[in-house]
Amino acid sequence: MHPFTKRKAEAVGALGESKLILSIRNWLGTTNPPAPFGIGDDCAVLPRPRGIQVVTVDPVIFGRHFDANASGRAVGAKLLKRNLSDVASMGARPTFAVVSLVLDRGVRTEWLRQFYLGIADAARRYGVAVVGGDVAQADGSLTASLTLLGEAGETRVLTRNGAKIGERIYVTGELGGSILGHHLRFEPRLTEGAWLAKQKAVTAMMDVSDGLAKDLWSLMPANGFPALRAEAVPISAAAKRLARKTGRPSLYHALSDGEDYELAFTLAQQADASRFERAWSKTFRTRLSCIGGIIHEAKRSVGSFDLNSVRGYEHLR
Amino acid sequence: MHPFTKRKAEAVGALGESKLILSIRNWLGTTNPPAPFGIGDDCAVLPRPRGIQVVTVDPVIFGRHFDANASGRAVGAKLLKRNLSDVASMGARPTFAVVSLVLDRGVRTEWLRQFYLGIADAARRYGVAVVGGDVAQADGSLTASLTLLGEAGETRVLTRNGAKIGERIYVTGELGGSILGHHLRFEPRLTEGAWLAKQKAVTAMMDVSDGLAKDLWSLMPANGFPALRAEAVPISAAAKRLARKTGRPSLYHALSDGEDYELAFTLAQQADASRFERAWSKTFRTRLSCIGGIIHEAKRSVGSFDLNSVRGYEHLR
Repeated sequence: MHPFTKRKAEAVGALGESKLILSIRNWLGTTNPPAPFGIGDDCAVLPRPRGIQVVTVDPVIFGRHFDANASGRAVGAKLLKRNLSDVASMGARPTFAVVSLVLDRGVRTEWLRQFYLGIADAARRYGVAVVGGDVAQADGSLTASLTLLGEAGETRVLTRNGAKIGERIYVTGELGGSILGHHLRFEPRLTEGAWLAKQKAVTAMMDVSDGLAKDLWSLMPANGFPALRAEAVPISAAAKRLARKTGRPSLYHALSDGEDYELAFTLAQQADASRFERAWSKTFRTRLSCIGGIIHEAKRSVGSFDLNSVRGYEHLR
Repeated sequence: MHPFTKRKAEAVGALGESKLILSIRNWLGTTNPPAPFGIGDDCAVLPRPRGIQVVTVDPVIFGRHFDANASGRAVGAKLLKRNLSDVASMGARPTFAVVSLVLDRGVRTEWLRQFYLGIADAARRYGVAVVGGDVAQADGSLTASLTLLGEAGETRVLTRNGAKIGERIYVTGELGGSILGHHLRFEPRLTEGAWLAKQKAVTAMMDVSDGLAKDLWSLMPANGFPALRAEAVPISAAAKRLARKTGRPSLYHALSDGEDYELAFTLAQQADASRFERAWSKTFRTRLSCIGGIIHEAKRSVGSFDLNSVRGYEHLR
């Protein structure tokens, strides 16, 4: 279903603001608690969190993060899941969300209904309450920004900052070719992230969303260089399919496509890596790959695999 | 300065994402704490709030909430202040903000700098830390959504729900004609809101942003009807100026223009209204008007001033 329609009766413009907000609350159903804890007052009122709190914001934009081929339901779920991936990468659990919607009057009401049902699906699945939002009109737009709160509970928050030279680099799942479907179907690594935050040997973590080649630099300490073993990078079947179309190496797609929503993290040098990997395998079916380690940039050999030759996704390219 | 430019070198597209994010952090200055408490990780990490927490989200959209005549600085301040007004209306104090920016590559970098300086101005003034954000590109867009957190501290949160039939209705400041400048220059009623939340006699509160004629219905209890005294409605000088242009009554503008960002609240029937008004006058210079009371809708006389004849601002009109 195309998100825009030329039939006025089928478009949100025919609803008007008050009815649209009422519809949104109906579509969100039980994931939207009654005011003042949900939509319906000037602010939503939140219970006091039990631990450290985290917050993140990410949008979905028509023509950028989805097109007319994606169902509204998948797009709504994607909006929440993009943010869930960020919360997962801190080792936190998600709590509350607010959604800011900017749309053209010609957006199809049924598409929007599917979109909010998709948010509600994912909210129920991952235990998130959608407590607030805003709807505004702008010609030609179909953009939604979701702000997600989370809490780290008793455990620590795992940041990007903490890795040292000599540590191993790991990545969950498989990378590349996300555009062929994974970007709508992925599972945010919440349980994995929470488990990793409990392992003291894990020193730093982030989610891979702009492509490993770009993102991995954020985990590097001063003078650190990511020395990767090309054969260890988990290349997805989609990256291989895409490579056949583009004529580029599948490794290129695995490293630079973006929207993988996997976790990359580092393991302390003194940790028993085999034991850690066994503990992982006992707990998760999710694939885990040790893709290399952090070396001193001075030790980087000229012939070695060079991440600088691959670029991740730049949003303003 | 027009927010869009055709000179590529002056546009954000020339910066690229990484440099743009770095620039934003510089522009925000001290209002953006270092990661992981500010921008720079997958999530921002927040200290545990001391009391009940509130959250709200509101955007500014080019062509909708501002045009090329408004300075970037005023627009940035407006974005934060719109949300501050919502926090004020709960009687809470603001704490943390995240900003989601969706923009065309052709947005002028200098305009954007002014915009973030404006956010930073207001953030410093009202004690807000800008802890996170996102930047995404969409052709033809210039939209920013800000999510604001606040906390109610020791005092209660004041919601829209709580007024009873027989109570007086008050409004702060003066209403109407906001489009002539007030919508960029207004002061969110934070100190007034916090003070009102401490007065037990105040039963319900909201901010007036879509025009009193539309907004006031949100304060009405079941079967309640807002009986206003037309002569008591505080009409701004701008509403009178606008009325001379439009040929409409200035009262119409006061009741329906929107973007007043004033507080409307109700006072318990048993409260000593004169004493309450004296206490207000001792504490604030801000004008306070008792504009009427809540009557049973059955007692509404046909000839009386009827809010239904005036409509507030509908966002999807």
